[in-house]
Amino acid sequence: MNGKPTYRVVIVGAGFGGLNAATALAGADLKITVIDQKNYHTFQPLLYQVATAGLSPGEIAEPIRSILRRHKNVEVLMAEVTGFDLERRVVQTADREVPYDSLIVAAGASHAYFGHDEWEPLAPGLKTIEDALEIRRRVLLAFELAERRAAAGEPDHPLHFVVVGAGPTGVELAGTLAEICRHALAHDFRSIDPRRTHIHLIEGGQHVLPAYPEDLSRSALEQLQRLGVEVLTSAMVTKIEPGVISMGKTRMKAAVILWAAGVAASPLGKKLGASVDRAGRVLVQPDLSIADHPEVFVIGDLAALKDASGKLLPGVAPLAILQGRFVAKLVRREIKLGETAHGRSEPREPFHYRDKGSLATIGRAAAVAQFGKIHISGFLAWLAWLFIHILFLIGFQNRALVLIQWAWSYFTYERGARLITGSTNLPGWNALISADGGAVEREQEIPAVIRK
Amino acid sequence: MNGKPTYRVVIVGAGFGGLNAATALAGADLKITVIDQKNYHTFQPLLYQVATAGLSPGEIAEPIRSILRRHKNVEVLMAEVTGFDLERRVVQTADREVPYDSLIVAAGASHAYFGHDEWEPLAPGLKTIEDALEIRRRVLLAFELAERRAAAGEPDHPLHFVVVGAGPTGVELAGTLAEICRHALAHDFRSIDPRRTHIHLIEGGQHVLPAYPEDLSRSALEQLQRLGVEVLTSAMVTKIEPGVISMGKTRMKAAVILWAAGVAASPLGKKLGASVDRAGRVLVQPDLSIADHPEVFVIGDLAALKDASGKLLPGVAPLAILQGRFVAKLVRREIKLGETAHGRSEPREPFHYRDKGSLATIGRAAAVAQFGKIHISGFLAWLAWLFIHILFLIGFQNRALVLIQWAWSYFTYERGARLITGSTNLPGWNALISADGGAVEREQEIPAVIRK
Repeated sequence: MNGKPTYRVVIVGAGFGGLNAATALAGADLKITVIDQKNYHTFQPLLYQVATAGLSPGEIAEPIRSILRRHKNVEVLMAEVTGFDLERRVVQTADREVPYDSLIVAAGASHAYFGHDEWEPLAPGLKTIEDALEIRRRVLLAFELAERRAAAGEPDHPLHFVVVGAGPTGVELAGTLAEICRHALAHDFRSIDPRRTHIHLIEGGQHVLPAYPEDLSRSALEQLQRLGVEVLTSAMVTKIEPGVISMGKTRMKAAVILWAAGVAASPLGKKLGASVDRAGRVLVQPDLSIADHPEVFVIGDLAALKDASGKLLPGVAPLAILQGRFVAKLVRREIKLGETAHGRSEPREPFHYRDKGSLATIGRAAAVAQFGKIHISGFLAWLAWLFIHILFLIGFQNRALVLIQWAWSYFTYERGARLITGSTNLPGWNALISADGGAVEREQEIPAVIRK
Repeated sequence: MNGKPTYRVVIVGAGFGGLNAATALAGADLKITVIDQKNYHTFQPLLYQVATAGLSPGEIAEPIRSILRRHKNVEVLMAEVTGFDLERRVVQTADREVPYDSLIVAAGASHAYFGHDEWEPLAPGLKTIEDALEIRRRVLLAFELAERRAAAGEPDHPLHFVVVGAGPTGVELAGTLAEICRHALAHDFRSIDPRRTHIHLIEGGQHVLPAYPEDLSRSALEQLQRLGVEVLTSAMVTKIEPGVISMGKTRMKAAVILWAAGVAASPLGKKLGASVDRAGRVLVQPDLSIADHPEVFVIGDLAALKDASGKLLPGVAPLAILQGRFVAKLVRREIKLGETAHGRSEPREPFHYRDKGSLATIGRAAAVAQFGKIHISGFLAWLAWLFIHILFLIGFQNRALVLIQWAWSYFTYERGARLITGSTNLPGWNALISADGGAVEREQEIPAVIRK
């Protein structure tokens, strides 16, 4: 028996950051508690595939308990964290407090509506499995309702779908939706022609993929247009009503509006009491701890950290993974040296991140990729994206299934997961019909497209 | 151009009966409209696998449009049928009427609570994908809540799950739940031991699988007990409250109550105006039409038809399939002969069904099967069940995935689809805790087991 009490690490959030911190810590002589609101980890890079009916939720999610099962010193709690008491060193949940010696907060981010939370029910975002199912439901239901209307003899106006925000998520959603309309759904209806569907991608900035180099943005725009996506840049959304989206004086009717425009860090960031930036991200120290609390770390999308050139590190999975491992190593070393977070023999090393590149997929054989000075587009970039995601999926239990399902979809253009579950009500649908006797049309023509 | 208007067949319901009628009719020169509330067909024999997290919804469901895509004269409408006007020969939906020359109603069945519809939210049944997800949610959530409570230092009382009704669905649910507790979940928790979970199977009749020969019922009971299921027969449920189920004076606390006891035919049966039996099944003529309306057919679980010995034909998929094909053939022949339903050259042949046998699965390598005079149990019966379901799945697009997923589960004891989606509230949970400080226990001991 060791008289010393076991060192306790609490990890909030089982995304890429939290899970990697947990597994990297698990070998040490300490007790780890992972707290998450969900009982599963979501493989977020493939969430858009669930939203577009290519994959089932079970294929991109895995129970947190399964992932951590063999680590006997890791405990998983499905609970909502309501706050922190950093003085008493406890994490607060609805029904109990969980004490810690080190705390790692990896609660991630959600979408932001720039002060217009009333838009959320009209234009769902894509951050969770539930979001993805809601998007899938709306997209599929729009076609069913249009078919029903046209079969009853009403005029067959083409559907309009609008994706707001042309970052990586918006681009992959718009590209995949365009493909589905032209392939998977093309021959499934008798009274409407899904190939006539308009997919609009609305971006407030001057370019699609604004965080990418200009040549890649341009290439992404071309690839989107080749897929039939209608891109509108420099357009700020000013109003969303049921079935209608407005950008200043331009009003568009839309059967489905999807939101991929803004990111807001988890509200748990603010509850730590540390400084946060405008998006609610916690301004962390170079060692990823927060000011005055070297025993409290924030990692992943919830952390705001700048690189040597002063640029904010991106909210991507590889960064979260590295940060999780970095913090785990740091905690393990200090425990091994018998140090506490507050009494150390030497200052901590800062976290360093070398960006290995970025990739955005647009559709089948369509993507852009940047690896340092190398910029690639199209099929090659898409192959790189595929290869990296296959590597990524290694260690993910369902990878074989995901790949089979994926290959199947790729060669057959089939979307197997086209289930409408939940309500059969589509917000805005009645507005669309009642306004002009069934027409789903733009009230004002918008410029075809746009600067390159 | 043919001056004669196209003959119109409307099929209500895209279960096994409706789909088989549609595909068997599709080759003829007529127009077919398939109407279903859902946009997908559910492979019902594997629904319990979704409820117990072995398969994902997308793996046992397929879009109706995909299934019927290549039949250009088949139109699919996702709509709720609200009624029929048999005189004017139209099917009524919320927003339009659909005219027919022949009508095939295959709307299936749901579960029945014997006049206690208020039990439904407390004890969900298993007839749809949504039902299966709700059961999965409740079962998984019960373990999460128990772990959370035990991790907070409260006593670890074992959980009790109750399945009401020991027909094929109840037996497969109880058996699979028992297996999950002993295998898939066994090592996933730190503060509770899922292997201590009690699975109760409550049956009003004297035997489990009451429709089976007595030797097979006995064998099923033994196989259930070997899996650890606690079986209580001759027990009528008299009351269900949040967290508590009563059978007369016997009250049991239960974290989750599942309902597999009663079947009620779709309410559409009554709306046809024909005679129905107590379960709401339509009493059809020997040719599966209804009295005075030879152009209206009822097939599948919605139809009540007796065999030569006066025994009601069972509500199983093979029967629905044969009935769908029978009606299709009949309609095609009469069209070909230029006959109408009302003016025929000869009387119609009656529908004949030779029961090829019945199978019920209980768990891994546990099942019972009857093929005429041959009764088998255990591994062999399970192999037969598996073989027949594989055959059955042929023609089902996802069969490869289902089989891979299944094989994976079989060899690893893993349940990949363990996602808790939707609400994190469990009806009855607070009642369980508040009543006796956290104990989830039977208030009155019930007899261990039971006549064989």
